[in-house]
Amino acid sequence: MIIYLKKEISENEINELVQALKNKGYKIFFIFKNIVKIDGDLNNFDMTFFKKFSCILNFQKLNHPFYLVSREYKNDDTIIKIKDSYIGKKEEFTLIAGPCAIENEEQFSKIIFNLKNLGIKFIRAGLFKPRTSPYSFQGLQNNGLELINNFKKENNLLFVSEIVSIEQIDKLDKYVDIFQIGCRNMQNYALLKAIGKTKKPVILKRGFSNTIEEWLLSAEYIMLEGNENIILCERGIRTFENYTRFTLDLSSIPLVKKLSHLPIIVDPSHATGRWDLIEPLSLASLACGADGLLLEVHENPKNALSDGPQSLKLENFEELLCKLNNIAKTLGKEIK
Amino acid sequence: MIIYLKKEISENEINELVQALKNKGYKIFFIFKNIVKIDGDLNNFDMTFFKKFSCILNFQKLNHPFYLVSREYKNDDTIIKIKDSYIGKKEEFTLIAGPCAIENEEQFSKIIFNLKNLGIKFIRAGLFKPRTSPYSFQGLQNNGLELINNFKKENNLLFVSEIVSIEQIDKLDKYVDIFQIGCRNMQNYALLKAIGKTKKPVILKRGFSNTIEEWLLSAEYIMLEGNENIILCERGIRTFENYTRFTLDLSSIPLVKKLSHLPIIVDPSHATGRWDLIEPLSLASLACGADGLLLEVHENPKNALSDGPQSLKLENFEELLCKLNNIAKTLGKEIK
Amino acid sequence: MIIYLKKEISENEINELVQALKNKGYKIFFIFKNIVKIDGDLNNFDMTFFKKFSCILNFQKLNHPFYLVSREYKNDDTIIKIKDSYIGKKEEFTLIAGPCAIENEEQFSKIIFNLKNLGIKFIRAGLFKPRTSPYSFQGLQNNGLELINNFKKENNLLFVSEIVSIEQIDKLDKYVDIFQIGCRNMQNYALLKAIGKTKKPVILKRGFSNTIEEWLLSAEYIMLEGNENIILCERGIRTFENYTRFTLDLSSIPLVKKLSHLPIIVDPSHATGRWDLIEPLSLASLACGADGLLLEVHENPKNALSDGPQSLKLENFEELLCKLNNIAKTLGKEIK
Amino acid sequence: MIIYLKKEISENEINELVQALKNKGYKIFFIFKNIVKIDGDLNNFDMTFFKKFSCILNFQKLNHPFYLVSREYKNDDTIIKIKDSYIGKKEEFTLIAGPCAIENEEQFSKIIFNLKNLGIKFIRAGLFKPRTSPYSFQGLQNNGLELINNFKKENNLLFVSEIVSIEQIDKLDKYVDIFQIGCRNMQNYALLKAIGKTKKPVILKRGFSNTIEEWLLSAEYIMLEGNENIILCERGIRTFENYTRFTLDLSSIPLVKKLSHLPIIVDPSHATGRWDLIEPLSLASLACGADGLLLEVHENPKNALSDGPQSLKLENFEELLCKLNNIAKTLGKEIK
Repeated sequence: MIIYLKKEISENEINELVQALKNKGYKIFFIFKNIVKIDGDLNNFDMTFFKKFSCILNFQKLNHPFYLVSREYKNDDTIIKIKDSYIGKKEEFTLIAGPCAIENEEQFSKIIFNLKNLGIKFIRAGLFKPRTSPYSFQGLQNNGLELINNFKKENNLLFVSEIVSIEQIDKLDKYVDIFQIGCRNMQNYALLKAIGKTKKPVILKRGFSNTIEEWLLSAEYIMLEGNENIILCERGIRTFENYTRFTLDLSSIPLVKKLSHLPIIVDPSHATGRWDLIEPLSLASLACGADGLLLEVHENPKNALSDGPQSLKLENFEELLCKLNNIAKTLGKEIK
Repeated sequence: MIIYLKKEISENEINELVQALKNKGYKIFFIFKNIVKIDGDLNNFDMTFFKKFSCILNFQKLNHPFYLVSREYKNDDTIIKIKDSYIGKKEEFTLIAGPCAIENEEQFSKIIFNLKNLGIKFIRAGLFKPRTSPYSFQGLQNNGLELINNFKKENNLLFVSEIVSIEQIDKLDKYVDIFQIGCRNMQNYALLKAIGKTKKPVILKRGFSNTIEEWLLSAEYIMLEGNENIILCERGIRTFENYTRFTLDLSSIPLVKKLSHLPIIVDPSHATGRWDLIEPLSLASLACGADGLLLEVHENPKNALSDGPQSLKLENFEELLCKLNNIAKTLGKEIK
Repeated sequence: MIIYLKKEISENEINELVQALKNKGYKIFFIFKNIVKIDGDLNNFDMTFFKKFSCILNFQKLNHPFYLVSREYKNDDTIIKIKDSYIGKKEEFTLIAGPCAIENEEQFSKIIFNLKNLGIKFIRAGLFKPRTSPYSFQGLQNNGLELINNFKKENNLLFVSEIVSIEQIDKLDKYVDIFQIGCRNMQNYALLKAIGKTKKPVILKRGFSNTIEEWLLSAEYIMLEGNENIILCERGIRTFENYTRFTLDLSSIPLVKKLSHLPIIVDPSHATGRWDLIEPLSLASLACGADGLLLEVHENPKNALSDGPQSLKLENFEELLCKLNNIAKTLGKEIK
Repeated sequence: MIIYLKKEISENEINELVQALKNKGYKIFFIFKNIVKIDGDLNNFDMTFFKKFSCILNFQKLNHPFYLVSREYKNDDTIIKIKDSYIGKKEEFTLIAGPCAIENEEQFSKIIFNLKNLGIKFIRAGLFKPRTSPYSFQGLQNNGLELINNFKKENNLLFVSEIVSIEQIDKLDKYVDIFQIGCRNMQNYALLKAIGKTKKPVILKRGFSNTIEEWLLSAEYIMLEGNENIILCERGIRTFENYTRFTLDLSSIPLVKKLSHLPIIVDPSHATGRWDLIEPLSLASLACGADGLLLEVHENPKNALSDGPQSLKLENFEELLCKLNNIAKTLGKEIK
């Protein structure tokens, strides 16, 4: 349950209320100075109890353990502004495209040139790649920072890059427009809190074995520290099916839309691990209400240093764009 | 591997070939008189071996353990004719709608009247309900047969009903136009074989914990007995996520389309267990290439004897129809 | 909730009670003539309501949706008698061993001879093998019946064999001492009901994607038809882990022991698919309270027609027997 | 594949070899100066190729993507020395017990006093608790450090505590004897690398949705940085079963023992979330070859600030100790 307190409230009043609630066995958490979350057995809660406290303005039952990310806290959709662009507008559908990892200047400049020609503004540009094996390509890491910088100035593009430890926040901040928290770090709460202390937009990927509730609770960790610029990203969950790397859970899109005001995008590349499923699942993502897509596009997937089999070739990406446009029009949306 | 033999082949020739293959350690299975499936370690297979046998016309490597249901056996889409209607035509998208179970004449006649008015031809009409608990409503069973019969004559509708044991085949045959094999019987091979011996169209639901490969192998069981009229139905798989009853695996749609010539439809009602997710996931199913939908629609979901929470009200169904139509047009399809 | 009615009860009294309960919105199910199960929202149930009905002797709240298989129905362990042997006795631990499938007389006679010498009484003897692929060895089927018969007379052994359709019940009845319902048929309710009508002991394997609750509900289907001779068998559940075929869920042993009076055994062969894990997991099964093991033992696993990689060689089986004996003694149990 | 190079090797020789391997399309990774891992398609590898290079002493095919943690690298069991105690000795079975979290001095001192009396040397003492919800008790954090310190001096005990970010390593180093990496951080590679740079013993819990292979690869990350003092800990994986919080995967014990030289312990408390399953699963863990247990024991589970329902009371813990001792003797082991 959430209690809203009046703005001018004395310490005495607070202490009295806190003590009374503790005596009743409730756990109390101050979300803001005047918004308090109460946990415990609320089934038999005596509502008249509240009336004794003149400092209480109002209260609200919660259906879920999260609050700030919920429609109860904020009913209107959150729209995230990144320079002149937006993610989360009802009338737009955002494409974020690019290679899994920046490999070298030539590869990156080619793909950027082509994506820009197709009107893409948001570029994925992985520098720090959390790989299951220590023997796999770990990304260009710091060596790639200047590469991003060069392209940013020239092209007026926006860059998304994954962040894997607290130390990187300051370093990446000036190069990158959107941080990404990868699925393996969705419950790295130390990192979530640190990102929460910045105001930087952040894509929070769903952990591959996390429930939607756990995912929204991770977003709550970020928002509780003051950062509301969160874009959720469905990227598939781990199941027994092995024709695909993970199982894309598109039910999460309408569910998150009901539960939360945050925008949500889909990453079909990592979900399936197969470039030939990207098109149908991208169209499905648009049809069921996602705010955008995060896609792996590579000049030469066969020789990619990571995630080749799941990367679209440019020609397939162009074809996909065309089909997305057709359905988007029907839905009153514009591809951005 | 598949070997195609010449049509006129003597028993001697067959015996010789079989013996030679057995000597090499292969397992042999006669699919038809002149189509033979060979299993075993084929990596180091000596292709010149085949040339010794003049009875061999041709051979073909298989990428999967199934054959008759695969595009290797038949590249063209299978279109299933049910009286004057079709399932599986590229330019059509089929709706099968109705209550989870027939409860009584009044309920069934109301819903049929309304669905017919909306142009629906295929009606789901459950009589035998396989329920997890023996204490749950098990369907009208034989008592519902005459109900179906009455409506069939009057309304020129097509009825789909689940079959749960071999004994029912003969009994249901004259009342029902499409048999359904439910997810819990997907690996009830005795039932699959018995259905395979009829020519009746059959909806084969994916078991909630079965891989796509296992699902296609179950279809292979049916086809191997001579029944090619199989419609696959994705209905969600069991995962750890608990906001939905199951996790709808829409990746299976484009995957099955690549692997198999059989039509595939989607049941979002059972997959999610939530009526409020049906619309977005139905649109997604259409967008990613499904051939149709199997939907639970109920006059009065709150009082349904089974599956109330996942049944659409008629008014929501009508709204969904309208949105499906819009996207279908973009894709060059017609809702049937 | 369960209501116990007095033994001499008139139809009038029953009708009145049923009507009163229906009026309150409850579903009613007569388990026996004088034991009634009531479902519905029982949280706010008014217990004084019952006092109005003199035909009600007593009532009992249920914590789970099953009843007959639960400790609420019967607190004492069920011990199943098969000729002169027992399964489920606290001071015994039962071994059921043998090949996955009977392949031919020679193979079967050798293994039986050896197992008998080691003191084994219960033999697994698969005739009808439900295989994922129609191209795999399906068992000797009816051809194996006489083989079993010969060995029975000579050896005073007890035979376990899987039953996959209702038609087989009569046929197998005289050859087989314990029916087995395989994991793929755990929710084949038509088969469960038919087995329930016999009094034959039956091993009910857990479906590889079924919860413990669903498993016990399937046992309830059998018991509700009058057959109490049910032995549950844990055989692993489907997860994402792929070093083993399934994930053996040993937590189910103590859980089932708490929830149910039925005996429970473990099949580590199918669970893991690896003979080299059988020994440690067999010891673990004994240590955590199982009533026995179902093991695949083969004379020559490399050439087995099915499940070779998961079958123990005789020499390993002998070693396992010795280690089981050591731990059994500590626990006050005897290996049978 | 692993190549072992001679110790005195010139830069020229290295460069030549590296170039030759790259030309063949292989990826090369220097594990140590003279041990090189080669990835790529090795099926058709030409072994004579190696003979051209006199700097190559030997080579070894790998069956798995990890190496340093494998039996191929080191066949003998790794035994970890912590002051005067050991984890991983064949003739010992280690108990690590204590509350989920240190709550306050009184609670902690009571439980420590009692555990010490029972002969327990290793104490779990959580300070930083990664909780799914930001509103749950997060541990005493830095405030608990002095508490640990006081008890260490007086009691000659060894303390295990979870570490959730790189910053804590230096801070916790002098208070804690074994670091713990929790399941949510198993793929937090930045943290793994940082821990790898210390020589501190570390318990690496299996991520609740990670395969055994991924788990061993995470251990490889640590070992590759120079820290070999790794204790693996099975703590249950996420499945569909919901009578338990997770599904304890005891097959992982014998599997890890085959694959790796590292010791492995079991945490049945987190796996099941139920104190009443701890005893049978602890006995099973011992029986199937684990090196020890990590158990939650609490003076007063009902009032625990976290994980109460899964904590053993002292009296149950004492009973468990007694039963463990009995089985341990049979196995020639001593409880430590």
